[in-house]
Amino acid sequence: MKTRPFERLISIEDAIEIVESKITPIDRREKIPIDLTVDRILARDIKAHFNVPPFNRSAMDGYAVIANDTFGAGQFNSKILRIKGSVHAGEVADVEIDRGECVEVATGARMPKNSDAVVVVENTEGEKDTVKIFEPVHLGKNVSNAGGDIKEGEVILKDGELLDPGKIGVLASLGIGEIEVYEMPKIGILPTGDEVCPIGMPLKEGKVYDINSHTVSALVRSNGGVAQEYAIVKDRFEDIKRSIETALENDIIVFSAGSSVGERDILIDVIGEIGKVLFHGVQMKPGMPTLFGMIENKPIFGMAGYPTSCLINSYVFLLPAMRKMARLPRKKYTKIKANISRRVVSTLGRRQFLTVKVRDGKAIPVFKESSTITSVSNSDGFIEIPNDVNLVEDGKEVLVKLWQ
Amino acid sequence: MKTRPFERLISIEDAIEIVESKITPIDRREKIPIDLTVDRILARDIKAHFNVPPFNRSAMDGYAVIANDTFGAGQFNSKILRIKGSVHAGEVADVEIDRGECVEVATGARMPKNSDAVVVVENTEGEKDTVKIFEPVHLGKNVSNAGGDIKEGEVILKDGELLDPGKIGVLASLGIGEIEVYEMPKIGILPTGDEVCPIGMPLKEGKVYDINSHTVSALVRSNGGVAQEYAIVKDRFEDIKRSIETALENDIIVFSAGSSVGERDILIDVIGEIGKVLFHGVQMKPGMPTLFGMIENKPIFGMAGYPTSCLINSYVFLLPAMRKMARLPRKKYTKIKANISRRVVSTLGRRQFLTVKVRDGKAIPVFKESSTITSVSNSDGFIEIPNDVNLVEDGKEVLVKLWQ
Repeated sequence: MKTRPFERLISIEDAIEIVESKITPIDRREKIPIDLTVDRILARDIKAHFNVPPFNRSAMDGYAVIANDTFGAGQFNSKILRIKGSVHAGEVADVEIDRGECVEVATGARMPKNSDAVVVVENTEGEKDTVKIFEPVHLGKNVSNAGGDIKEGEVILKDGELLDPGKIGVLASLGIGEIEVYEMPKIGILPTGDEVCPIGMPLKEGKVYDINSHTVSALVRSNGGVAQEYAIVKDRFEDIKRSIETALENDIIVFSAGSSVGERDILIDVIGEIGKVLFHGVQMKPGMPTLFGMIENKPIFGMAGYPTSCLINSYVFLLPAMRKMARLPRKKYTKIKANISRRVVSTLGRRQFLTVKVRDGKAIPVFKESSTITSVSNSDGFIEIPNDVNLVEDGKEVLVKLWQ
Repeated sequence: MKTRPFERLISIEDAIEIVESKITPIDRREKIPIDLTVDRILARDIKAHFNVPPFNRSAMDGYAVIANDTFGAGQFNSKILRIKGSVHAGEVADVEIDRGECVEVATGARMPKNSDAVVVVENTEGEKDTVKIFEPVHLGKNVSNAGGDIKEGEVILKDGELLDPGKIGVLASLGIGEIEVYEMPKIGILPTGDEVCPIGMPLKEGKVYDINSHTVSALVRSNGGVAQEYAIVKDRFEDIKRSIETALENDIIVFSAGSSVGERDILIDVIGEIGKVLFHGVQMKPGMPTLFGMIENKPIFGMAGYPTSCLINSYVFLLPAMRKMARLPRKKYTKIKANISRRVVSTLGRRQFLTVKVRDGKAIPVFKESSTITSVSNSDGFIEIPNDVNLVEDGKEVLVKLWQ
C-alpha cells in the first residue's frame, strides 16, 4: 500500500469561496401545475393581463347606495332608501340605481351601476321594499375597486422569486394554472468502497451498510434538489472513471466516500485525469479530506467516507452550493445559545464542527468518532469551534445551530 | 336577503384551544422506501438487530499492532515490526499476528486477530517486509470497536421522531430499506361561492378566480400534509351537505370560504345539522368570521372568503392543527425586530395580523384590504397587534414573523 499524506490544507473560508465561484444558478425551466409550485422558483416575470378584481365589487354584505344619499344619517335619524333589487356574488349586475334608491348586495357582488358606496347590513334595518340607513358613508366606502388588488399590465411577481402560499395566490388570482419555474438541480450520489454493502442486502463479513448515500440523498431532497442515487462503485480507477462519465448527466456529482488517502482511494487521480482538482484537504474537523473539482463544468465533491464526516461536509459545502444552484436562499439554521456541559479540547488549525444535544439550556457534546452515525443522529445540532481555539471551558456560552 | 350578524366573538386564545383540543395525532401508518422518509415521522421504535460496526475495525490508514510492542517508540527511537500482510476495507481478515508483528490496514478494515491498536501511516516508515514505528499507541488507539456506534439490542430511534438526514443514516446503518412512518394527514379543501371560477377556465362577468384553494393547498403541501382539492361547491344547503359527506374521507375539511354572514353562506347551518359548530367569529382581524366545528369526529374549518383572511386564518388555525395531527413540531417562524415605518391604528378588541415587508430595518405595512391577495404576496411576514392596543406609533419596535 502506498499512501499519500496531505501536504497542505486550505482554510474552510477559501474552500467555500472556491466552491461558490464554480456554481452557476440553474437556467433550465419547466412548466408545472400551480399546486406543485410551492417552494419552487418562478422562472419569469408575471405581468397581470387583467385587473384584479376585474370590476368594482362590494366588500361587505349590505346595501349599495349613492353616498350622497346617506349624508346626515345617524342612529336616531335614519335615511330611508328604496330597495331596487339585490345582487349576489357571481351575478351579473344589470340593475342600476338613482337617487333615493339602493340595491342589496352580498360581499363580492359586482356594484350596481351608479352606486358608489356600501352601507354594511349591521347599520341598516331592512323592510319589505325600503331600508333604514343609520350611518353616513363616503364615496367608495366598503367598495373594492377594479384593479385595487392587481392592476392590468403590472409586473406583480418577478423572475427568481420563491413561491410561497401568498405568491401562489397571485398566480391563481390571474387564473394561471401552469407555471414556469426553474428545474431543481440534479445531484448524482455515488457511493464507493469495497467494504460498502447496499441496504436491503445481507451483510457479509468485513462489510458495512451504505449510510452516506442515504444521508446525502435526504439532505438533497429536503433542500430543493433531486437526488439520483447510483450503485456502489468499486474502488478501481476504471470503475470510478466510468461512473463519473455516467453521472455527468447530473448538475453536481457527489462521491459519498473516496477522498481519504488510502491506496484505493483513487478518485483524486481520476478527477485529475479527466478534469481538475480544485482542493483536497480542508482545515476542518471532521471532514478534513474533502475533495472538490470540476469535470466538464460539473462540480464534483469527494466526501470523507465516515458517516459524520460525509454528512457534515455535505451541510458545509454541498448544501450552500446546491441551494445557490437552485436559486434558493441559504438554509436558515435556528440558532440557540446554550452553555457547554463540559470542557472540550479542540484541534488548533482546524475548525471543529462539534455535534451537541441541548437539554435545559446546556449544550451536551455527543460526538463520539467520525466513523459513527450516532454522533449526528443523537444530536440536535452543532457548534463551531474556530481554528485558533484550543479549549472551550466547561459552562462557556456557545451558539448551537439546530439541524431542524 | 336575511343576514345574521355575529352576536359574540370568542378570543383567539380560546379559539386555538378549542381547535387543539379536537385534534388527535394521526395513527395510520405506512411503509415507504428509506429515501422518501426525510421530514416524515417514524412510526415505531427502531431496535438494533446487530452491532454497528459489526466488527472491530481500523479507524485510520496505518498498521494494526499489539499496543505493547510500540511502548517506548519515538521520533528518534523507532520500533521495528515485521509486516505480516495487509487488509483492505471490506476484506475478510484471516491473518493474525504475534508479538513483533503487524498488518498494514486501510481505514475501515477489519482488525486482524490479536491486534489491538493502529499506528497511523504518518508515524511510520514502511520498507519491504518491515515498518519503523515512531509513536507509541495505547490499547484501542485508532480502532473503532464493534458496537461502538450502535449496540445490538439498543433502541436507537423512537416512535414519533422526525426523520432527518442523521436519523436516516441510522436506519441505513442497520440496512433497513423500508421504514414505517405515520401517514400524512389528508386535508380536503372545498372552495365555495357562486362568484368563484376555477383557474384555467375563462372568467365570466361578475366572477373571480378561485385563489383560496391554491393558497391553502400550498400551505398544506409545504407543511407535511396531503392537499385534496375539490371542485367548487355551490352556495346551496344540499350542495354543501353533499360535498361535506364526500370530503369526510379526509382528516380535516377546510371550506376556503363560506363563514361570512350573507344569506347564501349556509355552511354554518349544514354543520349545525350534521355535526356541531364549536365557534363562529373570533376576535381577530382579518379572519373574524372564522368557523370551526366537528362532523363525525372530523374537524371542519370555514374560512373567511377573502384571500388574505383565508390565508391568515389558515396560518393561525389550520397550520398548527395539521402539524399536530401530523406529529410535526410547530412551524418555527424566523422572527426579526424592526421599527414600524408609520403609525398604525388598530381595532380594539381584535388581534390584528398586519402584513409588512421589511426593508433596512423598517417594517413597512403592506396591508390594503382583506379582499386583496397582494396584502400577503407583497409582504415578507406579519406583526401581531394585541386586542388592547389601539395605536402603534411610528418608529415603534415590532417583532416580524417571516413567512419564509
